[in-house]
Amino acid sequence: MRIHLQNPDNEPLFDFSRAMWEAAAARAPDIGVGHDVSIGATPADFVAAMREAEALVTDASVIAAHFPCPAPQLKLIFLTNAGLDKLAPFGWLPPGVALLNNRGAHAAKSGEFAIMSILMLANRVPAMVTNQRGEIWRKLWGSVLGGRHLTVVGLGTLGAATAEHAARFGMRVTGVRAHPAPHPACVQVVGADAIEDVLPQTEFLVLACPLTAATRGLMSRKRLECLPSGAGVVNIGRGELMDQTALCDLLDQEHLSGAVLDVFTTEPIPPGHRLWSTRNLIISPHTAADDPATYNPHSLDIFLENLRAWRDGRSLPNRFDIARGY
Amino acid sequence: MRIHLQNPDNEPLFDFSRAMWEAAAARAPDIGVGHDVSIGATPADFVAAMREAEALVTDASVIAAHFPCPAPQLKLIFLTNAGLDKLAPFGWLPPGVALLNNRGAHAAKSGEFAIMSILMLANRVPAMVTNQRGEIWRKLWGSVLGGRHLTVVGLGTLGAATAEHAARFGMRVTGVRAHPAPHPACVQVVGADAIEDVLPQTEFLVLACPLTAATRGLMSRKRLECLPSGAGVVNIGRGELMDQTALCDLLDQEHLSGAVLDVFTTEPIPPGHRLWSTRNLIISPHTAADDPATYNPHSLDIFLENLRAWRDGRSLPNRFDIARGY
Repeated sequence: MRIHLQNPDNEPLFDFSRAMWEAAAARAPDIGVGHDVSIGATPADFVAAMREAEALVTDASVIAAHFPCPAPQLKLIFLTNAGLDKLAPFGWLPPGVALLNNRGAHAAKSGEFAIMSILMLANRVPAMVTNQRGEIWRKLWGSVLGGRHLTVVGLGTLGAATAEHAARFGMRVTGVRAHPAPHPACVQVVGADAIEDVLPQTEFLVLACPLTAATRGLMSRKRLECLPSGAGVVNIGRGELMDQTALCDLLDQEHLSGAVLDVFTTEPIPPGHRLWSTRNLIISPHTAADDPATYNPHSLDIFLENLRAWRDGRSLPNRFDIARGY
Repeated sequence: MRIHLQNPDNEPLFDFSRAMWEAAAARAPDIGVGHDVSIGATPADFVAAMREAEALVTDASVIAAHFPCPAPQLKLIFLTNAGLDKLAPFGWLPPGVALLNNRGAHAAKSGEFAIMSILMLANRVPAMVTNQRGEIWRKLWGSVLGGRHLTVVGLGTLGAATAEHAARFGMRVTGVRAHPAPHPACVQVVGADAIEDVLPQTEFLVLACPLTAATRGLMSRKRLECLPSGAGVVNIGRGELMDQTALCDLLDQEHLSGAVLDVFTTEPIPPGHRLWSTRNLIISPHTAADDPATYNPHSLDIFLENLRAWRDGRSLPNRFDIARGY
């Protein structure tokens, strides 16, 4: 197959190399070898490769910059992103081309980021950091995770990894998802329409779902106010899942004890924005899911797994469902 | 037995109550019932109780305020602290009285604090927090813990809990202790005299040992410089284990990528002290080990376990060894 890997120009740390491809091919020799593989970095590389490429491996920024464009042989696009909300609507996708996302590549890193964030909230780290800014030595008592109530919104790759870590720490995990079904790490899983029933018992809330028409604004001010006093919030999904202003208000009022956010409605956060200095709020610059040490090898493994399914005529595990939005 | 519980006046959250005692006694009915138990809060309560008390349960601040003092019936002192370095030298201890510390009560909370701190270093949270102070949005890439090198100094209650969490995350853990012996969570355990051999491969260093004559200044400037570029440091032991100034220098020079410290050579840290604003340093106000929700019940369980051993003429599991210093 004619495969083109196009590196975006935003972050050389995440560039694909020939050696990475060959290592991935060696890990999956039944599907990885015998292809004609090119790697590009410039717009000219991209345009030239698209004349013949049957599969394209790249990220959303390259799609946004180049599509729609002529790509007469293209059958598969594999993007190294999980959330593709920024590429909607999907009219740019050539008819008949399968769009694949990188669902699964973020599980390990995101799961560790989420359990770290929960531990930080349980140990009052956001408040400690706020106190440190003011040179204030004030003992704030935390508690262990065992037996405490966590609600995870979304039980896809990110949410499931979060729930599994939390269960290992003895937490009581409630899952919230569009189509509820039991999950081994959760004591209960409820539908999105029942979220208001579980919020009053939620000590820690983790948002780990994709941004879709159904989830935009999911955590409204009213719902954030349903959380009990002292609760903490983590967002590793998308900024637009939550009313960011309401969150800041509830932190300022000390109704919520802390928050760790990796995603924001505007990124980068503009200078002078209230988020930078809201008390008991930790800002992570949208890096929770990404791990340069493992990301590209893992992404190529996922791509090759999908290529195998495509060759064998099976359904593609990472096919992006445009109607659902994930 | 005549048992007196004296609450210190520094933190009402950690006060013993009659209900707590009775719950602990009910958990261990073979040893917990049939005692004459008093609970005191004022100096007058203390002095009155010491005329008859055979066992005293209290904390180091009460000892420092009252001993030496007449306590003619006293046989056991159980302190709710683990590290008793601030009570040295131990000339205040009445002859024949067994001194017990609270070794074991801190395992769960300290272990979670330590693995949280390691995750924070792996995810670059100390640097994110420094950037947030300056309203700087800068992506800093972290990585998962699997396969990475952690060195834990001290494999007592705190260090063992740390090593066990880390092993569960797939880390390669090296233990350092005075008398090395294999540990199931460690790939190797070396003696304190071999610490310089393991520092160059240490990505994360956790200090979790007691402060003794042998460990004071253990992490000198020279040894901190042995850590590889980008390493991170956690201290949940005592501030005096480490050259705090050298640590700040190495953070300022970005030789070390971050630190999470719970203990300091002077506590509270004075206003204006360099520690407050050293880059990539997170300050926790000596709260890592303490959990108001579980601490007192757990402490009483440990006290009763020791009381049972004392009744049965066995050696006391929590007996403090004055010569060793822990």
